Amino acid sequence: MAITRKLTDAIPGFHGIREALIHGHVPIGEIWIAEGKRSGRSREILELARAHGLPVRSVKTPELEKRFPGLTHQGMVALTDAFFYSSLDEILWASGEADGYKLILVADHITDEGNLGALIRTGSFFGAHGLVLPKDRSAQVSAGVVKRASGTVGIMPICKVVNLGRTLDLLDKKGFWILGTSGEGAQSIYQFDWERDVALILGNEKRGLSPSVEKRCHEVVRIPRGGPVESLNISVAAGVILAEIRRQQMG
Amino acid sequence: MAITRKLTDAIPGFHGIREALIHGHVPIGEIWIAEGKRSGRSREILELARAHGLPVRSVKTPELEKRFPGLTHQGMVALTDAFFYSSLDEILWASGEADGYKLILVADHITDEGNLGALIRTGSFFGAHGLVLPKDRSAQVSAGVVKRASGTVGIMPICKVVNLGRTLDLLDKKGFWILGTSGEGAQSIYQFDWERDVALILGNEKRGLSPSVEKRCHEVVRIPRGGPVESLNISVAAGVILAEIRRQQMG
Repeated sequence: MAITRKLTDAIPGFHGIREALIHGHVPIGEIWIAEGKRSGRSREILELARAHGLPVRSVKTPELEKRFPGLTHQGMVALTDAFFYSSLDEILWASGEADGYKLILVADHITDEGNLGALIRTGSFFGAHGLVLPKDRSAQVSAGVVKRASGTVGIMPICKVVNLGRTLDLLDKKGFWILGTSGEGAQSIYQFDWERDVALILGNEKRGLSPSVEKRCHEVVRIPRGGPVESLNISVAAGVILAEIRRQQMG
Repeated sequence: MAITRKLTDAIPGFHGIREALIHGHVPIGEIWIAEGKRSGRSREILELARAHGLPVRSVKTPELEKRFPGLTHQGMVALTDAFFYSSLDEILWASGEADGYKLILVADHITDEGNLGALIRTGSFFGAHGLVLPKDRSAQVSAGVVKRASGTVGIMPICKVVNLGRTLDLLDKKGFWILGTSGEGAQSIYQFDWERDVALILGNEKRGLSPSVEKRCHEVVRIPRGGPVESLNISVAAGVILAEIRRQQMG
């Protein structure tokens, strides 16, 4: 399966880089600044890059010219990140090749990059076979997500789908149990029998499961709590459930 | 137990607020900007505040004067956050009052605010009786931590100690089992018998357990993994272990 990551595109000049850093709408992997450039503008970019934990490389101007021919860079360029997604078919194929039960994660409109990054790390740790993201109103695999996944992006295939409901219908037809998670779930994760193929859905940070997703769940399970707090962070909830799935399936 | 949170201090003026926002060395709860102030500077603060997810309140200038008499505010003030810590005695008292086994979390130099915030939320969800932080080289309960704890700061008492080793010696004398976590732990969390009073230590993001802490552990346990990734995010690891402790203790 071809899952690679490379720096593909560039934002030239102070204003574009500053906007991208402040608003975070474009994932930035690193910033190149021409050697000897010590203006107030380059200091501001350096400060913002440090605040975002982004690497800054000092390069000779001819290197900038050679790497970005024809670009009006004003002595600074931000390199943006692009991630190559797998297809749902590739994920299904990977889950079929693996030993034991199939396990696919479905993110029902997770919007926080930190949560998505931590979910990728958690899923990869427990050996989930893939992650499905909706194309719209969802965090995507940006530079911020890559950073928060702590070097684990690229292990578990990730696909984007246009319609989450239709994807769940397809997984249902393929024999997966569609499992939602919620504080109000009827069964606890310890009562549920995980010895089967599972599509585990993690809901949005604030709203939980979408109605169109929840109605497709064969079961909604809950994590028993021991205090007044009603919900866990998404990646923590995923970790607790994936650990229990692993514990039951490994026996 | 007196655990409260209030906005106690203020950073006046553009430069101080801008520095605090960019470098994040002072926790900021919210920003007040005088009504009608539409300079490039106030736009820059608004952009930075938005990038950090901080609320900005538009107030009348007399309100600024009244709330911060004598402060040279230049039309903008950032309100900083201060958190009141409990003592270790208060945590021991709380764990003694609770039904069942005692459970205290110990953060062995966690430096990331997001990790500490998520750990507080996770510990509170599973009903841990308290959290011990070292005074130095550790994230503290800043505004960033409060934000990442999603409204759960104030439920579980948190104390700061000067010497983590001496604190563990004290907990040992009080009958706690000192438990460390590591990918190389001898026993899995499922083999270990959690029906006892436990001080559960979560190690630093990169270096894991400190030598002075590890040598005091009665046991180091590991979370069985299912893939090539070697470690979990701290709050996810805490969640998986706390869930298993709860599962065993509740029977």
